[in-house]
Amino acid sequence: MNGADTLADTLLHNGIDVCFANPGTSEMHFVAALDRKPEMRCVLGLFEGVVTGAADGYARMAEKPAATLLHLGPGLANGLANLHNAKRANTPIVNVVGDHATYHLQHDAPLQTDIEGLARPMSHWVKTTASSETVAADAAEAISVACTAPGQIATLILPADAAWSPTNAAVVSASVPTRPMVSEDAVRTAAAALRSGRRALILLGGEALRAKPLEAAGRIAATTGARLLAQQANGRIERGAGRVSLDRVFYRVDAALDDLREVEVVILVGAKAPVGFFAYPGKPGAMLPEGCQVTVLSQLEEDGVDALDRLADALAIPASVAPRLGRRAELAPPTGGPLTTASIAAAVAALLPENAIVVDESISSGFDFFRFTHEAAPHDFLQLTGGAIGTGMPLAAGAAIACPDRKVVVLQADGSGMYTVQALWTHARENLDVVTIIYANRSYAILRDELRQVGAGEPGENARAMLDLDRPELDWVSLAKGMGVEAGRADDAAEFVRLLRAAVSRRGPFVIEARI
Amino acid sequence: MNGADTLADTLLHNGIDVCFANPGTSEMHFVAALDRKPEMRCVLGLFEGVVTGAADGYARMAEKPAATLLHLGPGLANGLANLHNAKRANTPIVNVVGDHATYHLQHDAPLQTDIEGLARPMSHWVKTTASSETVAADAAEAISVACTAPGQIATLILPADAAWSPTNAAVVSASVPTRPMVSEDAVRTAAAALRSGRRALILLGGEALRAKPLEAAGRIAATTGARLLAQQANGRIERGAGRVSLDRVFYRVDAALDDLREVEVVILVGAKAPVGFFAYPGKPGAMLPEGCQVTVLSQLEEDGVDALDRLADALAIPASVAPRLGRRAELAPPTGGPLTTASIAAAVAALLPENAIVVDESISSGFDFFRFTHEAAPHDFLQLTGGAIGTGMPLAAGAAIACPDRKVVVLQADGSGMYTVQALWTHARENLDVVTIIYANRSYAILRDELRQVGAGEPGENARAMLDLDRPELDWVSLAKGMGVEAGRADDAAEFVRLLRAAVSRRGPFVIEARI
Repeated sequence: MNGADTLADTLLHNGIDVCFANPGTSEMHFVAALDRKPEMRCVLGLFEGVVTGAADGYARMAEKPAATLLHLGPGLANGLANLHNAKRANTPIVNVVGDHATYHLQHDAPLQTDIEGLARPMSHWVKTTASSETVAADAAEAISVACTAPGQIATLILPADAAWSPTNAAVVSASVPTRPMVSEDAVRTAAAALRSGRRALILLGGEALRAKPLEAAGRIAATTGARLLAQQANGRIERGAGRVSLDRVFYRVDAALDDLREVEVVILVGAKAPVGFFAYPGKPGAMLPEGCQVTVLSQLEEDGVDALDRLADALAIPASVAPRLGRRAELAPPTGGPLTTASIAAAVAALLPENAIVVDESISSGFDFFRFTHEAAPHDFLQLTGGAIGTGMPLAAGAAIACPDRKVVVLQADGSGMYTVQALWTHARENLDVVTIIYANRSYAILRDELRQVGAGEPGENARAMLDLDRPELDWVSLAKGMGVEAGRADDAAEFVRLLRAAVSRRGPFVIEARI
Repeated sequence: MNGADTLADTLLHNGIDVCFANPGTSEMHFVAALDRKPEMRCVLGLFEGVVTGAADGYARMAEKPAATLLHLGPGLANGLANLHNAKRANTPIVNVVGDHATYHLQHDAPLQTDIEGLARPMSHWVKTTASSETVAADAAEAISVACTAPGQIATLILPADAAWSPTNAAVVSASVPTRPMVSEDAVRTAAAALRSGRRALILLGGEALRAKPLEAAGRIAATTGARLLAQQANGRIERGAGRVSLDRVFYRVDAALDDLREVEVVILVGAKAPVGFFAYPGKPGAMLPEGCQVTVLSQLEEDGVDALDRLADALAIPASVAPRLGRRAELAPPTGGPLTTASIAAAVAALLPENAIVVDESISSGFDFFRFTHEAAPHDFLQLTGGAIGTGMPLAAGAAIACPDRKVVVLQADGSGMYTVQALWTHARENLDVVTIIYANRSYAILRDELRQVGAGEPGENARAMLDLDRPELDWVSLAKGMGVEAGRADDAAEFVRLLRAAVSRRGPFVIEARI
């Protein structure tokens, strides 16, 4: 038994049985250890952004962390963007990053880097384990940190000699701290704010966006007249027919300001007061109107689900009050016409399978999608949380592995899709039940929009060189085929509906290039 | 005029006229400024690893830095792996990384990260400019740092308000420090070592690997009997027929130890004493035998070209002594037989166009390539320097832009090729004269080998899950087509020769999937 064995055993002992991986030479002893543990499911990504994004999607759905296995500093660096998204989604992840043998560091070999320095900006916890004797205890600590509410990124650096050296160290159980309850005072203050007669907004984030706490929030809204709203970007929302429907804070600053301008008091439930995704000259960064009172019912790490129940009790809401639920509509897909973001949304709304998982990285093309799907079949909605593009298809891979019996539908912008296009290979390798819809608008459309807002007028040659994805156009059917995923192309709404209907009625990965 | 204008102007004023870019909203004012400067060539990469890798390849050949334009922390993070390679190649690069407006940082918006912390491990210099007034001076400092020998990575962080705020600041000229000469003492000591009668090795790196200094080294070797050797990994070697031919330090530890075991004295010329790429249980990390005397003729930052001339003078080498040059052989490509790494090497050696640029990221498949091409047409040889895979096709893009009249041939392993597969789109977009040869062995072959060395025996299910790229196999012809690059597949040597002959006899990007 060596350090690598105790790491694999400690992960398994604490319920971590999926490892998204792209190992290298310095991790070979850990690979050999994993090879001796068939109960660990090892999933290869052909680029580390796929690995970390899949770990994010997995944990959002499985409600427990996966491990990642990354090769030294550059392997970690390649995974940082999606670790950033995971951090913003409060997703638990345990990263295992190999390092050179401790005594090799004196040589400054070509792959040597400051791994801790690279890990720190995207991790809540970073530790280089000292030897094979400390691996199990450090792994347990990493798991404890990852599982601490609301979910954290723990990065354990494993020197090669800590992996390969013998040890008799036993596996260690991770202790996960109980999620703190909110204070009575917080509940009382929120109740008073809602009774004050001022125009109130309940802004929800984190676990408060699951179906059950949303019902409590819905009953509170129905009783007090407060408005419910979700944050702009959220790790996971349970929504659709039969669930409390709510909108999200607008992405566009002007729209958000306008939407929120009459709010007098905000109750934050696992949410942050809304701010602009970016700063713009002459526009405010905070989206709430001046003088708006901000009341925190629950911090993100506190138990917001319990807090909403207690808030309902404090407001003495009678059992007879029911929340307003999204109704179950018979939605018909479009029968013809041009393919637009609206017709795609209408088609997906109509054809979405029961209990599907929708992954949204549609960027500008999907701004409309949310409002089309309040009455669609109930589904989970996973978003790009940190703005680091390249999350959609990796998230889908992880979600599909966490929930093999549920259909995953990815709304994928073409520009961001190219960032981690390698994820399609993992969809094929693992035969994942994922339909990826590519919004093929052949540009970074959101940036063309932003350039206009800068007052630069129509883009000239250099701006077009940096914002347009034409010359040549991407051929997503060939890209998918190149990675073993079946695909089809739609130029109009009828063809799109035909392809989507086929894709959702069978199992396995499929790509639809939707030319809009 | 705003801060972004002064940045663009300062870059251009100091001769930086190529910008590899993938911008986002926070960089839109810089994009608008670049749009007003048609003399700047803006080249889009569909992923930041392409952007930084292309900047590396560009500067290796152009001998001056390009700028990169990256979007906030995640955009930088995506480019770090190839910045690591560039740093190990001592390539000058000026990174421009956008940040939120300074006053927006209080809001912890979704894309906010510790950009300086992310930049530091892969940069020699990191600075966040304070305002539009300081942009030009800080840009000039970044250029000075980048151009300081032997070449450095400078990362300038540009807050959005520093870009968009007005200024009357003038462009600033960068002052580049003169490269220090080596001391007379260093020359004397090296000469004495070579005269000592001990078995001597001259180990070369950096600019000493260009044709002219190699001739000086070759004359020294011919006179003293010293052996010439290049480092294992080098940014650029000028080699082939008519040039001094030399081998490189072996990658494999056992082979390197064996090859160097009789060396008694080493003269380092811009090189480091060789060390193992990785550590292995029970094997040494330093490749030189115990007791071997190490003499430094030139540090990497010193003028090794001048030092070699002075060493030849100190050794009083008569003008009549000529170096041994690689002879010009009439090489014939294979006419049939199976497609192997050897037949690929023989075919490339025979068909390589005069003055081509060879980019090598062939990993295990290309271990043999080097020795086949001592007698090939003269060419530049660019390597993976830092071990962070995903460098080949991006390097080629940059090299092709630096040298539009030269053919670029990429030796690309399939596993590492997938890391930055998006580079093929840039090959197509810019119509670059690049032939990419994919060594399609459908596995991380080097890792299968390493696993064997670990003593784990034949890989089981989990190891195969992480090391093999089959199930499904990658179809490189479709991948290339998906990004607008023509491609062909070869299953035997004759077909490979046919495709390569066609590819080198025309202009423009082409991919050959070589199934070995």
